[in-house]
This record gives sequence, C-alpha cells and structure tokens, in this order.
Amino acid sequence: MADAAGSTAAAPPAVAGGVTAPRGFQAGSVHCGIKAAASALDLTVLVCDAPASAAALFTTNLAQAAPVTVSRHHVERTGGAARAVVANSGCANACTGETGLLHARRMAEETAAALGCAPEQVLVASTGVIGVTLPIDRVVSGIRQAVGRLSHSGGAEAARAIMTTDPFPKEHAVRIDTARGSFTVGGMAKGSGMIEPNMATMLGFLTTDAQVPPALLRTALQTAARDTFNAITVDGECSTNDSLVALASGASGVSIDKDTYPALLEGLLAVSRELAVAIVRGGEGATKLIAVTVSGGQSVDDARRVARTIANSPLVKTAVHGADPNWGRIVAAAGRSGVVFDIGRMTVHVGGTLLFEHGLPHDEAAPRAAEHLQGRTVRIDVSLGAGGTASATIWTCDLSAEYVRINGEYRT
Amino acid sequence: MADAAGSTAAAPPAVAGGVTAPRGFQAGSVHCGIKAAASALDLTVLVCDAPASAAALFTTNLAQAAPVTVSRHHVERTGGAARAVVANSGCANACTGETGLLHARRMAEETAAALGCAPEQVLVASTGVIGVTLPIDRVVSGIRQAVGRLSHSGGAEAARAIMTTDPFPKEHAVRIDTARGSFTVGGMAKGSGMIEPNMATMLGFLTTDAQVPPALLRTALQTAARDTFNAITVDGECSTNDSLVALASGASGVSIDKDTYPALLEGLLAVSRELAVAIVRGGEGATKLIAVTVSGGQSVDDARRVARTIANSPLVKTAVHGADPNWGRIVAAAGRSGVVFDIGRMTVHVGGTLLFEHGLPHDEAAPRAAEHLQGRTVRIDVSLGAGGTASATIWTCDLSAEYVRINGEYRT
Repeated sequence: MADAAGSTAAAPPAVAGGVTAPRGFQAGSVHCGIKAAASALDLTVLVCDAPASAAALFTTNLAQAAPVTVSRHHVERTGGAARAVVANSGCANACTGETGLLHARRMAEETAAALGCAPEQVLVASTGVIGVTLPIDRVVSGIRQAVGRLSHSGGAEAARAIMTTDPFPKEHAVRIDTARGSFTVGGMAKGSGMIEPNMATMLGFLTTDAQVPPALLRTALQTAARDTFNAITVDGECSTNDSLVALASGASGVSIDKDTYPALLEGLLAVSRELAVAIVRGGEGATKLIAVTVSGGQSVDDARRVARTIANSPLVKTAVHGADPNWGRIVAAAGRSGVVFDIGRMTVHVGGTLLFEHGLPHDEAAPRAAEHLQGRTVRIDVSLGAGGTASATIWTCDLSAEYVRINGEYRT
Repeated sequence: MADAAGSTAAAPPAVAGGVTAPRGFQAGSVHCGIKAAASALDLTVLVCDAPASAAALFTTNLAQAAPVTVSRHHVERTGGAARAVVANSGCANACTGETGLLHARRMAEETAAALGCAPEQVLVASTGVIGVTLPIDRVVSGIRQAVGRLSHSGGAEAARAIMTTDPFPKEHAVRIDTARGSFTVGGMAKGSGMIEPNMATMLGFLTTDAQVPPALLRTALQTAARDTFNAITVDGECSTNDSLVALASGASGVSIDKDTYPALLEGLLAVSRELAVAIVRGGEGATKLIAVTVSGGQSVDDARRVARTIANSPLVKTAVHGADPNWGRIVAAAGRSGVVFDIGRMTVHVGGTLLFEHGLPHDEAAPRAAEHLQGRTVRIDVSLGAGGTASATIWTCDLSAEYVRINGEYRT
C-alpha cells in the first residue's frame, strides 16, 4: 500500500541526473532575457542524440497556447518521433494570436536548424505570463546559445530553466532492472507557481533510454499520468499551456514489448509520482500535502470523482490548513460529488483515525486526528462501502491566506 | 437588461414585512437555548392561518440532514399542503442518525399539536453545526413559546431567528398588481455563514397570499429558483440542509392560473433574487458581489455552465478581490468549463470595458476595468460568440484571506 506521499516499499532505486539521467539525452540552458533577473535561466533545449520515440499529452482547455497547438501538430505529423524539446519560462505565449503561432513555429525551426533535423521533430513548450508576446529575437539567440551548451549532465539546469515562481526545482530519475538489462527513466516538471498573476502551467518532461515504439510510449504515458499528473490539484484550474512529453532514446538497448511493458510503466509511474507530488508540495501558498484516497467504490471513476471533489473543496482545504479534523466537510463534499452511495456505510479516517461511520461521528477521536493534521503530510481515507473494491488517490494541498495574497495582488 | 445586482427597471414595488407581509401568515420567534448567547433568537415558527399550498426544493447532497428527510416526506404525503414551518438555528441536526430523525419528527409533532393540525402539515428546517444532537427538550418548550408569540408582524424577528453567523438578516417583500387585484410575495433567507466550522446551509422561505394550486406553485418555485437561489455560489459547496420552501395562503383572493402565472413568477423572482444576492453579499469573507453573465451560448445550459465555472474559479475570485482586471483567468476558466466554443470569437468585458476579443487582449483598457473592480459590485460579461442567443447569470463573491481565516480556525 502506498503511503501518503505515494511511494511504495518496492519503489525502484533513485539515480542522479534528472531528465538527462537516461543515456542519449543532453540539455543546454541559458538566460536569454525573458525573465528580468539577469541570472535567471529562462530557456532550455532538451535533445536526444538520435531521433527518439515521442508521446505527449496536452491541456484540455479550449484556450490553448500557441506552443501547445504547434507541438500537438508536430507529434501528429511525425507519428511520434522527436529530436528535441525547446522550452522557455517567463512568458506563456498564450492568447497571443497569429503572432504567437509564428513565434512558436520559429522556436521549433531555429532549434531544428541548430541540430540539423526537421522542425516537426522539435516540440515547443512555454510557461509564464498569459497575453504577452515573446521577445522572439532574444529567444532565437538563446536557442543558438543553448544548443552550444548541450551536456549529458544538463538536467539540473534544465529543471531550473523551466521554473517560473516554483519554490524549488523538480527532477527525479530511477533505474529499472529487467531480465533484459537495466534502463533509466528521468524527468523534470514545473508547477503552477502563479505568484505573478496570469502565470500558467504544469509542464512535465520524461525521458527514458528504453527502446519503445511510439504507440506503446503513448499508452504508457497516458496510464502513468492518470494516477500522477492527472491525479493532482492545487486549485482545480486547468491551464492554457499544460503539457506532458515523454521521449525514449532506446540507448540502453532494452526493448519494451508486452513482456517488459510493466517495467517501463513502473519507471514512468515512479518518476511521475515524485514530480506530481512535488508540484503539489510547491503549490501556491501550500503548507501541507494532502493525499485523499477513496476506496470501496463501484468503479475507479467513481472513486476518483469523490476523491477529486473532496480534494478541491475549499472547506476541506481550509480545515486542513487550520488542523481541524472536520469530518463533516469531508462527508458533505463526498455527498455532492454526483456519485451515488450510502452515507450510512461510508467511513472517514484522517491520519488513520476513524472519525465517521454508521452515519455518526466519533468525536472522542478528534484530538488524535487533529495531531496528525499538525504535520506536513496529511492522509484522508474515505471508504464508500458501495460494495466495490475500486479505489483512487488524488493529491492536493491546503488552502492558505497566502494563496489569496499571491493571487490577489494587483498585477504591476 | 438587469444590472449587476439583478434588479430591473420594472421591478415590482417593495413592501415591508418580509415573510409575514402577505396576508394570512404569522411568525413567532424565541431564544430556546440552542445558541449560547441569551439574547440570540434560535427558533421560529411560521404559520399560515389556514392550510396553505406548499412546495419545496431540497439539497441534492446525498448527506441530507434529518429535517430534510422529514420535510421531503411531509410534502410528498400531503401532496403540497402545509400549515407551518418550524426552523431552528445553531444546530443542523445533520449526521445525527436515528436520534436526529426522531428529533426532526418531534419538532413537527409538537408544532402540529400546538396548532391543532396533522404533523405532516408541518415542515422542519435546521441550520448550524453538523454532527451535534439537538437539545430536544429546549426545542420542544421553545416551539410552545413561539406558537404563543405568533404575530402578523413577526417577519423581521423570524429572519433573525434563522441566522447563524450571517452578517445581516435577509428579508424582502413585493406587491404585485394584476387585473384581478393585488397580491404580495414575501420571503426570508439565511446564507452560508460558516464562521463556526461545520456551519451549514442556505435556507429560504417564501410566502404569498395569492391562491396557487400546489403543482403550479412547485413549477413557479423551481423556475424562480433556477435563476436566483440556484444561480449563486460562495464556494461551490452544496450543504446537507439546503431547503427552499414556498407557501401560498390564498388570502388575497387573487387566484393564479395560466393567465396570472407570469405575475406570480414575477413576484417570486423579485423576492428570490433579492434574497439570493443578499446571501452572496453576506458570504464568508466577501467584500464584493460579482455578477458573471455569459451570453451568445447555444443553450442556456451552456451559458450557465461557463458562468458557473468562472464564478467558482479561485483564480478569478482572488483577482477580483485584488482589483486585478485579469482577463486571462476568465478566458482560461471558460476554456476548461467543458462547453465547446471558439476562443477567437469570445469577448470579455469587465465593468463594461472590453478586455479581450479576437483571441487578443486590449491591455490599454486595463486601468479603466481596474477602477471598476475597486467598487463593491463587479460585472463580468462574457460572450461566447457561439452563434446562439442564450445567456445566464451566476452571482458570486470574491475570495479573501478572511474566508481562509474563518474556515481555517480550529473548532473549539
């Protein structure tokens, strides 16, 4: 059973190097002048030494940024092959019209020219302020500089170059051992800092040196994302730029087929879970990580829907912030989720302490639950008692006055 | 066209008296000892001099409080006839098991005994802390005292007796003139104060001296609620106790049929809108009322869904709190609502100032919109440009640090 932070006893061994830990990947990062601070990295190019399999998931928001439009198109055109990703921070290139599309295409073209590949083999990602046009000349010269700085140990700088106002960089890598040999999965991500108003976006980049056909990589990415990047919420907002990209270099020589697919999935899940949970920990104004696990559902969809409703409830999030073992708000959120179950069979545990069953509270247990809520990692476990065995976990953070301060400050 | 607060140029004339303004209604209110403060009214009985037509709408939350279960049953049993409503504040009688059901039935029985009617002719409502058992002996003696205090001018006290931590009482009444004569619609409501953790509930009570068959009253109540009580949100939470009751005494002699139905609806709408908007104004930590109007939708459901997503967006609500004309968050919220439209045809106005069209911002207009956002009533108007004429308005309030403080304080 996973603990609150999602790690399991059998988690694969972590290795250093982040997104460039797998063989065959290099990254180069620069400050090109999008961010004001002269020392702040704001552009990175992640390159595979040879054409890689590629899969990507994008925001479901209708208001999709120019880089999302362009990258989606490129993945379709190539059928899932890529040489590189170019990503900038500080400007989301969203709500920027035709000019924005030209700029996103230009980023792919310049990266392709510097690497000697087709523009369609380059994916583009941007994160930062919405509605502002990229300083494209600086970006172009930054791309050329970044390609000149490519390094097999460039992962750590790349993880910093995609940050906006994230409180810390997010990278992780694991080694997976199989009967056919070992391969590595690495990754980096940025969260929804949004400390500057209009900041957008979850970006995630996963790499592996396993050899994976594009279709299988896509299936694995979707499956891994479902219980990790798609199982987190800071404030229920889906941005204009959300992108998750996976690249497989094949450089380890370990080929993934039906037999080794579970090993690939294990690696993607381990890295994705670590990055996703780190995004929540670094959520705006967050002081606590909350793992909401709903079990006993008739389907995983039911369990996930109830967990998501609880995780997005401002009353639950403020109660956790105040270390209030407020089972009533958890029951009420579950009850309005749209999933049908019997409140009389429901149980609510906070930090392993039973607070509600048979439709009635266990008030005497409240002090023990309150003690658990003082910590930085909180577990809420709900059983629907709906006769099923399906379960799902959603990770969220508490809602603090700091969130309001961060997002309510007037844009300067 | 309605202004931001929802009133129209042709609004019917307001009259004094609140819920007892219509002929045939009396109310009696007491402090029976549920609330700690000795002077705080916490129980009211609203009585019709003769059996009235009754209609009621209840929470859709699966976790429904005992008074909701009992009232729902009574309305069904009588086919829409009632003599009285008994309501208490300070205790929601929710998550109280079998004991709670016995207590809710006892409240109806005691009120019926004091009035000389059947228990099924009494509806019950409670609001306050969840998971706490009613002090039923005090409630029973309170009911007897309240019936002894019945008065045709008891409306104002009744509106105070249903408050929990609402910052102000909410009552309203209007006179409707028809060719058949005049009738009156009155009402009172309480909002989601929730200053004490676990506080629950929107309660609304509407009265009229028009003569209305129960089925028609139910249709009118549903229609009026759709664009008023069901078109507001403070924090997207639907409680365990939400109840909206309408009683028609017929004492005016004005009968409602197909011809006069629009007049009844006008009266119910006018009172419901006033009360619903007052609930939002009195929302937890609210400093601004926000009217989100979405037009140009292909259906009213589409327009309402987009408006509701914008109104519940914590990023939009914090931006309004900070007087930030952040059109990007409005566009992003609309884009993730699940309704399909073309962002390129969408327009966003804040306080009548155009901030976004053709997929691009009008940054030069931001200072004028920011000025509008300094006020206490804010208008956000979105056109989807989806080739339709459907529109909908949702009222909400800003999200302040005070909301977090109120809901994050440890329960004592």
